[in-house]
Amino acid sequence: MTTPLLESALLNERLGGRLLLKAEMLQRTGSFKFRGAFNRLSRIPARQRKRGVVAFSSGNHAQGVAEAARLLDMPALIVMPSDAPKSKMENTRAYGAEVVLYDRYKEDREAIAGDIVEKRRAVLVPPFDDEFVIAGQGTIGIELARQAMEIGADVDVVLVPCSGGGLVAGIATALADAAPRVEVYAVEPMGFDDTARSLAAGERQAVAPGGRSICDSLLVSSPGALTFPINRKLLKGSLVVGDEAVLTAMATAFSFFKVVAEPGGAIALAAVLSGAFKLAGRTVAVIASGGNVDASLFATALERSAWPSVTSQA
Amino acid sequence: MTTPLLESALLNERLGGRLLLKAEMLQRTGSFKFRGAFNRLSRIPARQRKRGVVAFSSGNHAQGVAEAARLLDMPALIVMPSDAPKSKMENTRAYGAEVVLYDRYKEDREAIAGDIVEKRRAVLVPPFDDEFVIAGQGTIGIELARQAMEIGADVDVVLVPCSGGGLVAGIATALADAAPRVEVYAVEPMGFDDTARSLAAGERQAVAPGGRSICDSLLVSSPGALTFPINRKLLKGSLVVGDEAVLTAMATAFSFFKVVAEPGGAIALAAVLSGAFKLAGRTVAVIASGGNVDASLFATALERSAWPSVTSQA
Repeated sequence: MTTPLLESALLNERLGGRLLLKAEMLQRTGSFKFRGAFNRLSRIPARQRKRGVVAFSSGNHAQGVAEAARLLDMPALIVMPSDAPKSKMENTRAYGAEVVLYDRYKEDREAIAGDIVEKRRAVLVPPFDDEFVIAGQGTIGIELARQAMEIGADVDVVLVPCSGGGLVAGIATALADAAPRVEVYAVEPMGFDDTARSLAAGERQAVAPGGRSICDSLLVSSPGALTFPINRKLLKGSLVVGDEAVLTAMATAFSFFKVVAEPGGAIALAAVLSGAFKLAGRTVAVIASGGNVDASLFATALERSAWPSVTSQA
Repeated sequence: MTTPLLESALLNERLGGRLLLKAEMLQRTGSFKFRGAFNRLSRIPARQRKRGVVAFSSGNHAQGVAEAARLLDMPALIVMPSDAPKSKMENTRAYGAEVVLYDRYKEDREAIAGDIVEKRRAVLVPPFDDEFVIAGQGTIGIELARQAMEIGADVDVVLVPCSGGGLVAGIATALADAAPRVEVYAVEPMGFDDTARSLAAGERQAVAPGGRSICDSLLVSSPGALTFPINRKLLKGSLVVGDEAVLTAMATAFSFFKVVAEPGGAIALAAVLSGAFKLAGRTVAVIASGGNVDASLFATALERSAWPSVTSQA
């Protein structure tokens, strides 16, 4: 479905510019991942569908694949890290998928998923490194260009949460066609800045293992083989943001936009609020990529003041 | 702006029916009140605009009037109860309005506002008992009928949060024209069930003073002189819901729809989840009328499990 492009007069005034928020937490399954999954699954020929699909995912891709499979009447098995948010595991099962758990710090999810694919002769649905997945995520760019035009907003910059780089590659590709003047930046969590490092090096670079971030949906350690060449060609850069700024952005999305952003979903907004990106005088769209977050972590974010401290404005 | 009509496949499955949520927390100023305020203010002749507008409100009408006045370049003064949520007071000021506080339990807000109107020769903007305000809120019904048709939903029932009755009167009037088969119910907080009592009595009845509810936006003690005759003619009934069910509905809106509902904004959803209204087998739209809630109260709601307890579904 088309998700709304939200705007807050109060926040714009405080920022001294125009901020548009693409509310992908309102997408089916609570994140943008449904777009890529549905596009990929709908390309599987009818005679292969009964063997089903397999995916590995920290949660949002899992739910996207599970729901797309349910709508297309296909079996789905998802390999998930044992420390993924409970709500994501439970919802993946509720969409009708089988869930197999693994240890994020000791086991190789690609090997586990590969074994199962071989046994079942199922189709593996990659989280980002797939042309149909990238194209599906790119529909956000097409919608954004149309919605901005409808409200008379001339977008200068789009900021996109980045893990393996499928979302930002899809959006940058769509905008290169629909609105070529727009600059597109990736935004990554501190410790998982593989796209920033790779753009600087001019080739794919992995981050050192052992990094930790609350952005559970953005913990990929190196860019994709398909996504990086696209991003190298089309992105203006990649910004890096820490966890505290992400929590403040979650509280700000709550106060000003009345939406639930998960940590990874709030990181593009965090880039603006933290000053990692200077919005003043410009029109900037941030992609709020998902809202699948446990209540306890969201309550922790709400202990932060929205940016800037609302009380100090009274 | 048009607000989205949201749906959750997971929640539908658990409810055994189809639930649509009209997300008015995503409206300008975070509630439906902007619709009625803007419609009313835009009817004020140009030569009278510089004298400004006055309103009394617990918060959402305040923000709606303040923002409509800002957009139409008019001064606004708002009379607010001293115990209104801090965020509502601060935002009303941030939209550029002057705020005058009063004691909800001791003073008469209508008298205070009336005095100021007389001194300034300003226009009083009533929160609900005004034909232009009612018509403005009614635009929700027009949007809802169109959006339901677009997704192939044949709506049986619409549930609407009710205080003075302007929102439900506007929606019922719009639907009587656009979708006459649809049954419309008001939903009121326990202790403020004046519309339920009035419908039963066939004439306007006030509730006993001293009632308390967390639904700060729904604390009016008797139906409006203009709204009640409309509601008496068009409503199927009024349902009454307690605070605990409202908190559970707020947690459910967070988990399944990724939106922030304030207590009064969650009460129609609460009517479904609490069983006050039986949804099974039907298509029901609930109006989620606003999302202006302080972080501390929202965190309290998040201590509740979403309906039904998500953990029990694992």
